[in-house]
Amino acid sequence: MPAKAILISIGDEILYGQTLDTNSHWIAGALDSLGIRVSKKLTIADTREDILYYLKESEDQADVVLLTGGLGPTSDDLTKPCLVEYFGTQLERNEEMLENIRRLFKKAGREMSEVHEQQADMPANCTPVANNMGTAPGMWFERNGKVIVSMPGVPYEMRKMMEETVLPKLSSMFIKDSIYHRMIRTIGIGESALAEIIKDWEKSLPPHIKLAYLPTMGSVKLRLTTSGESEQTKKEVQNKIDEVLPLINKYVYGFDDEEIEEAIGRMLKTRNLKLAIAESCTGGFLSHKITSVAGSSEWYSGALVPYSNQLKNEQLKVDNKIMEEHGAVSEPVVLALAKNIREVFKADVGVGISGVAGPGGGSKEKPVGTVWIGYSDEKKTVAKKFQFVRDRNINIAYSVVAALNMIRINLDKD
Amino acid sequence: MPAKAILISIGDEILYGQTLDTNSHWIAGALDSLGIRVSKKLTIADTREDILYYLKESEDQADVVLLTGGLGPTSDDLTKPCLVEYFGTQLERNEEMLENIRRLFKKAGREMSEVHEQQADMPANCTPVANNMGTAPGMWFERNGKVIVSMPGVPYEMRKMMEETVLPKLSSMFIKDSIYHRMIRTIGIGESALAEIIKDWEKSLPPHIKLAYLPTMGSVKLRLTTSGESEQTKKEVQNKIDEVLPLINKYVYGFDDEEIEEAIGRMLKTRNLKLAIAESCTGGFLSHKITSVAGSSEWYSGALVPYSNQLKNEQLKVDNKIMEEHGAVSEPVVLALAKNIREVFKADVGVGISGVAGPGGGSKEKPVGTVWIGYSDEKKTVAKKFQFVRDRNINIAYSVVAALNMIRINLDKD
Repeated sequence: MPAKAILISIGDEILYGQTLDTNSHWIAGALDSLGIRVSKKLTIADTREDILYYLKESEDQADVVLLTGGLGPTSDDLTKPCLVEYFGTQLERNEEMLENIRRLFKKAGREMSEVHEQQADMPANCTPVANNMGTAPGMWFERNGKVIVSMPGVPYEMRKMMEETVLPKLSSMFIKDSIYHRMIRTIGIGESALAEIIKDWEKSLPPHIKLAYLPTMGSVKLRLTTSGESEQTKKEVQNKIDEVLPLINKYVYGFDDEEIEEAIGRMLKTRNLKLAIAESCTGGFLSHKITSVAGSSEWYSGALVPYSNQLKNEQLKVDNKIMEEHGAVSEPVVLALAKNIREVFKADVGVGISGVAGPGGGSKEKPVGTVWIGYSDEKKTVAKKFQFVRDRNINIAYSVVAALNMIRINLDKD
Repeated sequence: MPAKAILISIGDEILYGQTLDTNSHWIAGALDSLGIRVSKKLTIADTREDILYYLKESEDQADVVLLTGGLGPTSDDLTKPCLVEYFGTQLERNEEMLENIRRLFKKAGREMSEVHEQQADMPANCTPVANNMGTAPGMWFERNGKVIVSMPGVPYEMRKMMEETVLPKLSSMFIKDSIYHRMIRTIGIGESALAEIIKDWEKSLPPHIKLAYLPTMGSVKLRLTTSGESEQTKKEVQNKIDEVLPLINKYVYGFDDEEIEEAIGRMLKTRNLKLAIAESCTGGFLSHKITSVAGSSEWYSGALVPYSNQLKNEQLKVDNKIMEEHGAVSEPVVLALAKNIREVFKADVGVGISGVAGPGGGSKEKPVGTVWIGYSDEKKTVAKKFQFVRDRNINIAYSVVAALNMIRINLDKD
């Protein structure tokens, strides 16, 4: 049996919908890679009653309980006093943690106050966990073979603490179950259509290989999960992947952790090509996605965001007459954007995007969500129209996925 | 007493850390604005046992239970059969929902299959909730004055369903508690330093006004919460805000829902100025933030992302000699970028960013996280160096926050 973990995020701001909890997402992924199974995630209020109640419930139900939040220096942070009460212990000032906090303040050239010194007060029964990114130390508690860890809610402080201390300690304490995941990543097809294509293959999967469909904006990931990481298991899963690939090949852009922008980077790098982008309605988001890939400067020239027609004309030589006649959101305009950005930036592949992201700017002929995307390389310049139907930010995000898929398809054709 | 809600997200992919749950975040905010208090959020596995157990527990603990996920057409989706079992009912094909699904397929010009028709099979005791963005209808159950609603996990399908049906119905059923929130938004100061400055004011708050510090990347929001929306309550909270503002004025960029990029848009629009951006290491993310604001074309010209030195020179006239002598990540380069983008794009305010986002490209003098930001307007051109210490994507995000704050400060000075 794999070790079971429960994650508790503490904070009214999460329950009020004011702060998005990314911590438990990150922790879940980190524990999964160790082979520790997260059986439940909880978000609870900053109240003494709830913290004490769910500490007890979680300690009963799981081997590992990880808490985030409520450790700040301010008076609305209740996690530490609750842990003191829960374990029936008291606070003691820890000199090592105090020294850490002092060092941090010195490095940042800031004054230290009483409130910061109090952050070095630790429950007597815990092993303090050093915080190298902030002032609130973590706390590691152990009893009856179970582990409870409290960490700050600031994401990068928690992550560093997990990576440096908590994950290695958990890994040495609990036997790995080695969950084995493989992921087939598709784009440009919906969940149901994909399920229809592969339904016979799905039926052929043995019971110990579990299939999940993970749809995200514009793409669907197929996840195969099984236990154990023996060579035989791996081979069996790979055989199943090899069986399904011919059915869905034209939608598959990569495997496992590879994002579509990384796959495009890989394709461009292999072919020694450079990409340039002229994006209007997406406002820089495609360029951001591309440059989120480490090392993208090897295959990426840069982008122009010509938000006005004047810039489209002056910077990218889009004919004013064409814009007057067809409008800025039109086939000839994105063809020109894609072709000209390639020339102006001396790149090999060019992309042009122009659309109506909304909420304003729509018309009967071109309602909100109308987006034209152009692609240009040495051999061809093509364009395609998309009609999205959501709000501004989702239309922008979908447009970027569509553009990434268009780059992939056209590079594949070459 | 306000109505109490529990949110349940169903899905192994969330527990494995493969999908970030943004649904419960959005729902929490939507319920909060109605005055329905979310007392707990749960994420549980796609298993019959867990779904049945937590349905029961949540129905006991709350007035409203909202479930998302597990309604897809594929075989790993268990929510609907579990609800049928939980309520001891059976499935019946619903003609209205079937008609909706047919209409959707017709609109998209796609073939419909048996698997899609099955999505119109509804538990006999529920009121189906139409899904106008996808094929899986929602289900509204009521008993003993309590409400259980099941919705798809696809974010925009769930949102539309909430907005069109679920929120109005909940609002009419449950008396509003009218939680009253005000938010003071600060940037450029840490949580502890802010707490130190306002500690006397914080002590002066009456017990029925609750203060929370909500730190996010590079900014801290102060949230004041109280019950009731009488004019007197609002005035009392406003008085407390007026008291604290003189102490922290230089860090405050806005109130309530206004994001820093919206605040900048407001400032630029009022002054009839246009912004242009030349961003290298941030790769388009600043431009994306700016253009995520609806109507930004009124005060935004556009951006150039000159990822190579060649583009910095050819497109923005940055002297090659300067880049050779000082490097691309340097004060004279961002001064030139900020000044020249303003001229080239004929804008009033220019911003230039150049840095080492990482993981590669660092040196002893310019380690990963070194970022120069330049600002230029009619009266001045200035630059500032920042040193971030995280990984690529966090360095990029912090750089964008720093740039936004630099625009704010310099516009304020004018």
